[in-house]
Amino acid sequence: MREYDELFARIKEKAKLVDEKLFGLIPEKEPKVLYDAARHYPLAGGKRVRPFVVLTATEAVGGDPLSAVYPAVAIELIHNYSLVHDDIMDMDETRRGKPTVHKLWGINMAILAGDLLFSKAFEAVSRAEVSSEKKARILETIVKASNELCEGQAMDLEFEKRETVTIDEYMKMISGKTGALFDASATVGGIVGTDDEEYIKALSTWGRNVGIAFQIWDDVLDLIADEEKLGKPVGSDIRKGKKTLIVAHFFENADEKAKEKFMKVFGRYAGDVKGKGIIEEDMKAEVMEAIDLLKEYGSIDYASRVAKDLVNKANEALKALPNSTARKDLELLARFIVEREY
Amino acid sequence: MREYDELFARIKEKAKLVDEKLFGLIPEKEPKVLYDAARHYPLAGGKRVRPFVVLTATEAVGGDPLSAVYPAVAIELIHNYSLVHDDIMDMDETRRGKPTVHKLWGINMAILAGDLLFSKAFEAVSRAEVSSEKKARILETIVKASNELCEGQAMDLEFEKRETVTIDEYMKMISGKTGALFDASATVGGIVGTDDEEYIKALSTWGRNVGIAFQIWDDVLDLIADEEKLGKPVGSDIRKGKKTLIVAHFFENADEKAKEKFMKVFGRYAGDVKGKGIIEEDMKAEVMEAIDLLKEYGSIDYASRVAKDLVNKANEALKALPNSTARKDLELLARFIVEREY
Repeated sequence: MREYDELFARIKEKAKLVDEKLFGLIPEKEPKVLYDAARHYPLAGGKRVRPFVVLTATEAVGGDPLSAVYPAVAIELIHNYSLVHDDIMDMDETRRGKPTVHKLWGINMAILAGDLLFSKAFEAVSRAEVSSEKKARILETIVKASNELCEGQAMDLEFEKRETVTIDEYMKMISGKTGALFDASATVGGIVGTDDEEYIKALSTWGRNVGIAFQIWDDVLDLIADEEKLGKPVGSDIRKGKKTLIVAHFFENADEKAKEKFMKVFGRYAGDVKGKGIIEEDMKAEVMEAIDLLKEYGSIDYASRVAKDLVNKANEALKALPNSTARKDLELLARFIVEREY
Repeated sequence: MREYDELFARIKEKAKLVDEKLFGLIPEKEPKVLYDAARHYPLAGGKRVRPFVVLTATEAVGGDPLSAVYPAVAIELIHNYSLVHDDIMDMDETRRGKPTVHKLWGINMAILAGDLLFSKAFEAVSRAEVSSEKKARILETIVKASNELCEGQAMDLEFEKRETVTIDEYMKMISGKTGALFDASATVGGIVGTDDEEYIKALSTWGRNVGIAFQIWDDVLDLIADEEKLGKPVGSDIRKGKKTLIVAHFFENADEKAKEKFMKVFGRYAGDVKGKGIIEEDMKAEVMEAIDLLKEYGSIDYASRVAKDLVNKANEALKALPNSTARKDLELLARFIVEREY
């Protein structure tokens, strides 16, 4: 759609501002291997959605987005550090179409590259061109989010060891794992641009809800999207046994027989299935049956509705801000997040 | 010695102030496994030497040590995060007499526990009861040190893959790996207590040199100390093939034949030697021969002299500060570091 294309153009424009300072903090330097590993994900791509939120939030409250660039860089660095470490924990082999950091440099260097990105995030905070009072508040906001990131990831690791999780548990986990940093992005943008606590609060609510919706919609897409567009096989989360909101809803609503049937497929194809005598067609058929079960109990519809409700709630909160192009961009971004097909 | 006993008593006293706020940041809370893993090293012990340096540096420039408690907690948390992650990388199995975090909770939770401690360090900065300007400067100082920590550790990892390192390379690595955080400890203490740049500079110089001396002396002790006092076998660094200043000096000075002889033992007994048909007595004899080679070329004496010179340089710098009990404590601590037998 044309309005999304225009949004993407503006995201790209702001990404340029951000990347200049981002790569200034992690230049090509010694120890080369460390900086190469740290630069890998930022170089491999990423749309810089969170930095866009920071800069646009600043604009939406009447501030100068240029003074929010370093805080935006800080958020992007936190995001990248968490990707590097999460990929080790999840044993993921590719990210942004390239091998993961630990695949290329080994686990030790990947731990260290993540640590450096984390440290550099706080260097970015330290460089923010705002008053010392605002800097202190930005620090506080980012620290809160990075604590929550760890807590959310710990819950997610713990989920792996369990048969099922409840909707409440899932929502708590995902609020930390993806809600917190979107919240911090919008909040930090607000802090840079205004002293109006009501605006900052509205941005925080917007970010938290959009962040949660983003992940839920991702999990919905895994089940309903076109494989071509998605770039991975449909139902790959079911193969891996990933506990999503959809699965949590299913477990709270399905009868014992349906659950039993689902569990036979759920998580059965985790890791590399090559050479295990598994016939691709059989696996696909099984996964499709499991997806049908989720559909039967309305679990995919439920999650999809929750994501859309969260976005509505987010954009409703944003009405506390004056009408502006920047506010519209945030609204548009939130809508895109639950309308995208990839 | 009695003066050291009195110093230890004061270190203990200050540790109490620090621990109260330290454990306030990492209380027993959910997700339990994450917080348990993060609390493990702080609970297992540690003398809180770096926090002592922070508080005493503040006192030494005429400030109130109580306002330096959170900055001191920040430094201790950085130290502990780096221990958790370094232990994973070095595959160490015990620390402070207990199993390492990754031994008890697995690598994934250990990565995450380290991340949480890192994040909490910046929360401690954020809670510092100082002006926003000082807070910003403390942040900058700690960020610089934590960048250097990563760089030093990356160099150390890279050393493992090489046959030898030069004295210059070693000094650069160790300046980051242990010099930086001692430097930051003294500097941060100075920032809290004064605006006098000369005092802060003097403290920074003191901390950097003491930190480097600390590690060099540790490596000397590994070769000359009493096994009972040290709590580990003499020459364990030689068994592991650890590149120390002593080894760097030896490689710059020994003749080819001596180097060849040394290399036959150096790093030969890395990891678990049980069940590999190695006779303990043979290994000990070999290691003692390697130590004799180091002695022959004056490498142990050289490192020991470097450590003592660094401490002299450190305490010389400290003379820029007014004479006080606090300054004397710092001088005493520095002297202890290169006189201790364990």
